[in-house]
Amino acid sequence: MATDLEIARATPLRPIAEIAARAGIPDAALIPYGRHKAKVDLDFVRAAEARAGGGALVLVTGINPTAAGEGKTTTTIGLGDALNALGTRAMICLREPSLGPCFGTKGGATGGGRAQVAPMEEINLHFTGDFHAITSANNLLAAMADNHLYWGNGLGLDPRRITWRRAMDMNDRNLRSMVVGLGGAAQGVPREDGFDITVASEVMAIFCLARDLADLQARLGRIIVGHRRDGTPVTARDLKADGAMAALLRDAFAPNLVQTLEGSPALIHGGPFANIAHGCNSVVATRLGLRLAEVVVTEAGFGADLGAEKFLHIKCRAAGLAPAACVVVATVRALKLNGGAAKAELAREDLAALARGIPNLARHVENMGKFGLPVIVALNRFASDTEAEIAAVREAMARLGVEAVLCTHWADGAAGALDLARAVNAAIAAGTARYAPLYPEAMPLADKLRTIAREIYRAAEVQIPPAVAARLARWEEQGFGRLPVCVAKTQYSFSADPALLGAPEGHVLPVREVRLSAGAGFVVAICGDIMTMPGLPKRPAAEQIGLDAEGRIVGLF
Amino acid sequence: MATDLEIARATPLRPIAEIAARAGIPDAALIPYGRHKAKVDLDFVRAAEARAGGGALVLVTGINPTAAGEGKTTTTIGLGDALNALGTRAMICLREPSLGPCFGTKGGATGGGRAQVAPMEEINLHFTGDFHAITSANNLLAAMADNHLYWGNGLGLDPRRITWRRAMDMNDRNLRSMVVGLGGAAQGVPREDGFDITVASEVMAIFCLARDLADLQARLGRIIVGHRRDGTPVTARDLKADGAMAALLRDAFAPNLVQTLEGSPALIHGGPFANIAHGCNSVVATRLGLRLAEVVVTEAGFGADLGAEKFLHIKCRAAGLAPAACVVVATVRALKLNGGAAKAELAREDLAALARGIPNLARHVENMGKFGLPVIVALNRFASDTEAEIAAVREAMARLGVEAVLCTHWADGAAGALDLARAVNAAIAAGTARYAPLYPEAMPLADKLRTIAREIYRAAEVQIPPAVAARLARWEEQGFGRLPVCVAKTQYSFSADPALLGAPEGHVLPVREVRLSAGAGFVVAICGDIMTMPGLPKRPAAEQIGLDAEGRIVGLF
Repeated sequence: MATDLEIARATPLRPIAEIAARAGIPDAALIPYGRHKAKVDLDFVRAAEARAGGGALVLVTGINPTAAGEGKTTTTIGLGDALNALGTRAMICLREPSLGPCFGTKGGATGGGRAQVAPMEEINLHFTGDFHAITSANNLLAAMADNHLYWGNGLGLDPRRITWRRAMDMNDRNLRSMVVGLGGAAQGVPREDGFDITVASEVMAIFCLARDLADLQARLGRIIVGHRRDGTPVTARDLKADGAMAALLRDAFAPNLVQTLEGSPALIHGGPFANIAHGCNSVVATRLGLRLAEVVVTEAGFGADLGAEKFLHIKCRAAGLAPAACVVVATVRALKLNGGAAKAELAREDLAALARGIPNLARHVENMGKFGLPVIVALNRFASDTEAEIAAVREAMARLGVEAVLCTHWADGAAGALDLARAVNAAIAAGTARYAPLYPEAMPLADKLRTIAREIYRAAEVQIPPAVAARLARWEEQGFGRLPVCVAKTQYSFSADPALLGAPEGHVLPVREVRLSAGAGFVVAICGDIMTMPGLPKRPAAEQIGLDAEGRIVGLF
Repeated sequence: MATDLEIARATPLRPIAEIAARAGIPDAALIPYGRHKAKVDLDFVRAAEARAGGGALVLVTGINPTAAGEGKTTTTIGLGDALNALGTRAMICLREPSLGPCFGTKGGATGGGRAQVAPMEEINLHFTGDFHAITSANNLLAAMADNHLYWGNGLGLDPRRITWRRAMDMNDRNLRSMVVGLGGAAQGVPREDGFDITVASEVMAIFCLARDLADLQARLGRIIVGHRRDGTPVTARDLKADGAMAALLRDAFAPNLVQTLEGSPALIHGGPFANIAHGCNSVVATRLGLRLAEVVVTEAGFGADLGAEKFLHIKCRAAGLAPAACVVVATVRALKLNGGAAKAELAREDLAALARGIPNLARHVENMGKFGLPVIVALNRFASDTEAEIAAVREAMARLGVEAVLCTHWADGAAGALDLARAVNAAIAAGTARYAPLYPEAMPLADKLRTIAREIYRAAEVQIPPAVAARLARWEEQGFGRLPVCVAKTQYSFSADPALLGAPEGHVLPVREVRLSAGAGFVVAICGDIMTMPGLPKRPAAEQIGLDAEGRIVGLF
C-alpha cells in the first residue's frame, strides 16, 4: 500500500496562484513561499473583512480519540473536496502541524490517503515558518524578563513567581523542568524554569484568537509574565516586549494558503494544543475563508468534549462566529476500542464492544445539539467494517434523529464524501442552526466550569480546592471574570481519567490548578495531569527520516 | 538623517525574478519567498557546479573591530554595486544576520546608508527561515541524545560527558548554564547543559561548509555528541539523528537570493560566528556565485586575524577556492580609536592617535600578503575625516606598496565605490594572486596553532596546557590530525587580550581548551574568554521595536 507521502508525491499540484484565483484571491494579494504555498497579504484580508455577507461555517469534530485514529483532519479535507466537487465553493481551514511530534510517533497532520493537503512534507516540517516566529516571540519575552532581573529588577518581579516558560517546537522531555541562570553573577539569575512545546504557548493561542495586528499586539502586551511579592502581576507590556513580539509575528500573522490533492483551497494557520489552549486554527483564517467561500469547513482538536466545546465557547465568541452545522467523526474500529475491544482484534466483527462504544458518540452528538447546532455523523469506513456493525451505528444515530453518513474519502477522495457533503449542504440550507453558548460571559468563573462539567462531561461534581477558588475570586475582582474557561484535561475520556471510556456519568472533575491567560483571554483550569512538553518514544520516528539520493525527504508519515 | 530602514523603504525594489534573470538564474530555478526573496533550487545549483569556468573571488575583511564600526558589510555591498555599475557582472555573497542581536544593541547586518541589501527588516528577522531550521536540527539531536539516556542508554553515553549543547537564536544569558532533566524519573535525566546562540552551533558551521546534501548529511553524522566513560565518542550517526537533521535542513540548504538597493544580486546564506566557528557564508552560495558572475565579493567576520585567516585556511581549503584579491576595510575614526582616542573625541583631528592605530591596519595588510593575495585598502570616508588624516593613512599604505582607496558608498551608493571597484578589477586583471595557506594539512595540530599565532597574531609563545596537548595528540591518533585549527579568541586584538590594541608583539596566546568539531571539520582552540551565548543590554533594542498603524515594523536599526 502506498504511504501518504507517496500518494501526495504522485499527485501533480497546481500553481498556488491558480488555486488562489479560483478561491477569489488575486495574484497581487499572494505572498508566495515556493510554488505551492503562499501567504495571503494582510491588506487583502483587511479589505475582505470589510465586505458584507459571508459563507456558512461547518465544524468537524470527533469522538474521544483512540489509538485506532478516527480521521478528523482527513474528513475535514474530504468534505471540503466533496463540497467543491458538488459545485459548492468551499474553503478548508486547518491547524498547522507541530514539528516536534513528527519526530516522535504521531507523524504528520496533513490528512491521509486521497484526502490530504500538500505539499505534505513542507507543511509538516517548517511550512512558512509561523511556529518558528511564535517560538521566537515566546522566547524573546522570556529573555527580556530574565534580562530585567539581571539588570536590577526595577519592576520588582519575584524570580520565584515567574510563570512565563520558554518554548521549543520539539518533543524534549528533558527540558520540562530545569534550573537556569547558573554559573555566577555574570551569567544570570538562578531560578526554576522549563520549556513547553510551542503549540502550548500562550503566544500560539493569542496568534489564533487575535482579530488583527493591533489586537495581536494588545493581547501580547496583556500576557502576565509573573508576579511581584505583593501578588500584583507584571505584564509583557511592563517589560516593553509587546512591540518586538508583534514585529516577530507580523509576517506569520498572514494566513497560509495551500491546496488539497484534489485542488481545493485550504487555509492552514495557527495550531494551539486543544488541552492547554483552545485548539482551533486562527480567527484571521476562518474569517477570511467565510468572506471568500460559500462554506468553510474547519476542525477542532481532540474530541468534541475538548475541541468543539472550546471552539464554541472561546473561538466563536472571540471572533463573532456562528456555525451552521457540526460533523462528528467516528469509525467502527474506534467505537469498538472505546467499547473495550483489544487493538489486535479490531478487524473482527464485535457488535458487543461496538454497542458499549456507541454511547460515546451519542453523547458527543447530543452535546453538540445543546449548542443549537444540527449534527451529522461521518462514519469513516474501513474494509474490515461489517454491514451489521455499520447498521448498528446508523440505527443508534437514527434514534437520536441524526444521520450517520458513510465516508470513503481516504480511499476515494471527494467521491467518497459526496453523501456527507450533500447532508451538510442540506443542513445549511435548512437553516436550523441556532448557535448559543452554554454559559453567559457574566457567569462567575467557577460556575462556568461547573456548567461545562455538568452539560458536556456529565460530571456529578467539580472539586475546586480553596486555593483555586481564591484565585478565581481574585481574578474576578481584577476584572477577568468575563473570560471563558479553557479546560485542560485528558482527551481520552469525558472525565479527567483517561481510562474511563464510553459515556461515564457521576464522576468527579478535580481541578488541580488554574492559570490566567490574560493575553489569550481565557482562564485555564487544569484537571488531572496535563503534559505541556511531550517526550520522544524509545524508537523515535526521527530515526527513519532522511534524504534519498535525489535529496527528497523519506520516512515521514 | 534618514535611518537605514527609512532609506531602504524609500527605494523601490524590483521583482526578484528580474534580479535573478540578470544574474543568470532562470525563473524555473527560483523558489520565491515573497516578492523580493527567493531560494535558488538545488538542482540548478548542482547543474551550475558541473559547468566549467568561474569568476574571480574577492575577500573583504577589516581591521580589528572597534566601537566606531568600520563598514565591512557596507563595503562588500558597495563594491559589488560599483563593479556592476562598471559593467563587471558581480555577485555579492554575505552571511545571514542572526536574529538574537537585533534585539540587543547590534541592530541589523544588512549594510547601511545607500549600500544595503533589502528587504532589510525581513532579512534581519526571520528571512527564509534558515536559522530556524538550523536551530531545529541542533535541538533535535539534543532531544534524541537525552531521549537515548532516558530509554536505557544502550550506547553507554556518559551524562557528564555530553558536549552537545542546545541552541536558540536569541541573546539569552540565563540559558548559558543550567541543570535540565529535573522533576523525577519520568521527566528525564538530570545533567548540566546550556544553550548557545544558533550562529555558534556546529550545525551552522556544517551548513556553511558542506558541498552538497550528501556531504551535509555525512558531516552531521560525524558530529560528536559526547563520550562514554572509556573516552570513546558517540556521534549523531550512532543516535540515528543525521537523516532527520538533514531533512530539517534540506530546504534551508538552497542559497537565498536578494538584491541591493541598487539592484545588484546578493546571495545571503549561512552565518556562523567568526569566534567559535569560521565566520563565512556558505560554500554552496559562494561556489554558485563563482559559476554565475565574473566577480564574487564576499566578506569574513570580525578582523582579518580571525575572519580572513579562517576564510583562507578553513573555507577556501574545504571548498577548493583561491581568492584573486583581498580588500581590507578601515576608517580614520576606527584607527584613531584603535590608537587610543576617546570615542567622544573622534570628530576632532588627532594625527597622533591615528599614527598609533595605523599599525593595526598595516599588519592586517601584511598578513593578507602572506597568503599570496594582492591587497587593497578601502578607507570609508566620514565627514569628520580631515585631509591630513586621510593622507597619513594613504602614505602609510603606500610605504607597504598598497593602495588605500577612499570610499563613500554609504552616502553615495555605487558611485562612491567606483575607484575601489576599478582597483579591484585591476588587481584581478593583473593576475598576481598566488593563494597559499600558511600551513599544510599534514602539520601536527599544535604546530598549526603555533603557525597562526606566529604569522598572524605575532605572538611570542603559545601556552598549551598538558591536558590540551594530550587531547590534540589523541585526536591525531584518531585520524583528526589533518583538520585545520579554528581559533576562538577576542575579535578586538591580535592577541587574546581585548585591551591590547594596535599591533602588539611578543604576547602569549593562552590556549584554555580545545574542542573537536568533527562534523564541521576543524579543531576549535579556545584562547581566553569566549561567549557562545550573548546577553541583552540594560535597555535592549527590543524595547523600541514595534509595528506602526499600517503594520510596518519600526525601530529596527
